[in-house]
Amino acid sequence: MSDKTVPSSLMPVEQALTRLLDQAVQTREITPVALKSSLGRVLGESLRSTVSVPPADNSAMDGYAINTVDLKLAQGRLPVSQRVTAGVTPQPLQSGTAARIFTGAEIPLGADAVVMQEQCLTIEGDHVQLPEVIKQGQNIRRAGQDIEAGATILPAGIRIQPQHMGLIASVGIAQVPVYKPLRIAVLSTGDELLEPGSPVEPGKIYNSNRYMLTGLIDALGMECIDCGVVKDTREATESALREAAASADCIITSGGVSVGDEDHIKPAVERLGQLDMWKVAIKPGKPLAFGEVLGTPIIGLPGNPVAVFVTFSLFARPYLLKSQGAANFMPREMQVTADFNLTRPSNRKQYLRAQLARGDNGVLQASLFGNQSSGVLSSTCWADGFVVVPPEKTVCSGDSLQFLHYAELLS
Amino acid sequence: MSDKTVPSSLMPVEQALTRLLDQAVQTREITPVALKSSLGRVLGESLRSTVSVPPADNSAMDGYAINTVDLKLAQGRLPVSQRVTAGVTPQPLQSGTAARIFTGAEIPLGADAVVMQEQCLTIEGDHVQLPEVIKQGQNIRRAGQDIEAGATILPAGIRIQPQHMGLIASVGIAQVPVYKPLRIAVLSTGDELLEPGSPVEPGKIYNSNRYMLTGLIDALGMECIDCGVVKDTREATESALREAAASADCIITSGGVSVGDEDHIKPAVERLGQLDMWKVAIKPGKPLAFGEVLGTPIIGLPGNPVAVFVTFSLFARPYLLKSQGAANFMPREMQVTADFNLTRPSNRKQYLRAQLARGDNGVLQASLFGNQSSGVLSSTCWADGFVVVPPEKTVCSGDSLQFLHYAELLS
Repeated sequence: MSDKTVPSSLMPVEQALTRLLDQAVQTREITPVALKSSLGRVLGESLRSTVSVPPADNSAMDGYAINTVDLKLAQGRLPVSQRVTAGVTPQPLQSGTAARIFTGAEIPLGADAVVMQEQCLTIEGDHVQLPEVIKQGQNIRRAGQDIEAGATILPAGIRIQPQHMGLIASVGIAQVPVYKPLRIAVLSTGDELLEPGSPVEPGKIYNSNRYMLTGLIDALGMECIDCGVVKDTREATESALREAAASADCIITSGGVSVGDEDHIKPAVERLGQLDMWKVAIKPGKPLAFGEVLGTPIIGLPGNPVAVFVTFSLFARPYLLKSQGAANFMPREMQVTADFNLTRPSNRKQYLRAQLARGDNGVLQASLFGNQSSGVLSSTCWADGFVVVPPEKTVCSGDSLQFLHYAELLS
Repeated sequence: MSDKTVPSSLMPVEQALTRLLDQAVQTREITPVALKSSLGRVLGESLRSTVSVPPADNSAMDGYAINTVDLKLAQGRLPVSQRVTAGVTPQPLQSGTAARIFTGAEIPLGADAVVMQEQCLTIEGDHVQLPEVIKQGQNIRRAGQDIEAGATILPAGIRIQPQHMGLIASVGIAQVPVYKPLRIAVLSTGDELLEPGSPVEPGKIYNSNRYMLTGLIDALGMECIDCGVVKDTREATESALREAAASADCIITSGGVSVGDEDHIKPAVERLGQLDMWKVAIKPGKPLAFGEVLGTPIIGLPGNPVAVFVTFSLFARPYLLKSQGAANFMPREMQVTADFNLTRPSNRKQYLRAQLARGDNGVLQASLFGNQSSGVLSSTCWADGFVVVPPEKTVCSGDSLQFLHYAELLS
């Protein structure tokens, strides 16, 4: 019985994702953090500004503030009546004069344009010769041009990036209400697992999923609770799950969800809660489990490291981001051209590790890593992302395909 | 004298970048970090594996390990002679028998294929009925398939992502040699600057650059030394620069590098070192300074927040990443279609804040934020990145342009 003969038993990727997302419960715990420490956090409430930005009309240049009506006077040669620096409240502009002004400084009442100093000539120290053509309003930034007082500047649910930090600062907000970062417990199973740093042992392999998952969770700005490797017994698994459920908002396991009778995750979870085992039409991947342990959601990822990487990115990441309160949790695909042939279709949707290069026509071309086996983790390090091949499709070089860049998945 | 009449005095963006990058001195300080804490750090030495991954031939499936020669026997009905779980060293396969085997378990000597359990029928508890067609080598992952002992797994200069953490773990490395994170001192200048959280004052504006720069530097995985706001006097500026130079690997300032005579950065730097003031053909941006303070490099960014955001992303980011030892420090542009017209060309290369949307034909279309003034920081929060318009070019809707996505700039 090959894969091709059992398509009806496989759940489409989209259906698995919808089921997961439907069950994502958004966290409600909001905590204030100092703006300085808010990078990567999810905004818990929309932010409104109490001030206008800029607060008053101000100069976009170093130069001279004038009233364009005065230009006709003295062939554009005006005495300089005051000097306005940023941070100082200016006097109203004396009629028939110019005010020396600097970038960011408030425009004196009565001035309606700023002339760049490079376009002016200072004469006898206290006069300035202006150019002939000056437009009303030029080089003046209007009060409230960026933000009007009372306006919403950012909606809840954004993941705070540096430009948001700048915008929040610009309206004077120093403490930012963010959702408390989710705590994600990571459990590995498998007696064959050795920890990095310990000597090689026959029959054993180093645990890579534990470290990859730590990195994936850290990159989402969530708190990773490392529960280590659980001994392959039902008792040990059950006790580890109890502990994880007590301390975390979500449990993620790798391994132990395929059909082998050496897997203790399923019976242990079922004694403490409930677990659905899915066979998803995804390659690499397929076995995926979702359920709860004493009320705490659990996602069971496959055991192969590439499958862990792909299924975390495709399923766990959007589920976790939605639970964290992020408004945008779905990665955006981009269109690329295949620089490879794939003659054997699969009944599963394939996420092949691929590099991008710019072709002669400027179009991005995807080429495949030679070994797409789900055990070959180096493929994920070589690649720029996943090229997506729909189920039952073959690919000819030149075909248009969707591509998921790591930049869309690893943060 | 408009911009258009002085093109010769402006330095092309590419030239400014080359000058900066030519002066970037790569850090040499390497420090070991625990693999778990290595996310985002730059690998200081290439890593070689001392082990093969997988260490031995192993099973890709739960099923039965057999020798295909034995298939002819007893119509493919074989007794099960041993049970091989992951982490255990198996006995050689007894001729004419099958071994029960689980995913990841070592293939017994003498077996040359694994049959998925879904394709088998267990009979009388101790025999298994195999399918007719079994290919030699099927479902066996070969030793060294992912990594051969002695091979370089990762080159120096990569910025460690979760998949790298997985790969490093898979060869048993627990401590990772990374470059010490650069310490970047951030200085703001301007007496008009108020700190967020303090009450509004006439003539003053909130300091947004300080927080944006903190975020930009944090996102690069570097250490931000916040030197606060320096009073607008030459003495205060000089003393702040001395302190910054003593504690940081690079100093970044915002403001104080345009031609106004209220700027104290230039004379202060020149007393302690040297500063080149550039006028770069970039919009927003233009004034950019580069030099050194008592031997510590200094980059002077403009004062307008959008200009800070753009020039940091375009100039400071690659300079800092190269100095940090990162092999890839240049952002990659992508091709998009303009969903706007730009009838007035500029003599500067423009980085316009734009959002992307997928058009009917699947092509990405860029539309502009309405107000492209360099004071309007909300444009950067609304946008997905910058659409790039070369100097002297106009744009018609439908034109092909390059786009710099934030994902390429903000980490």
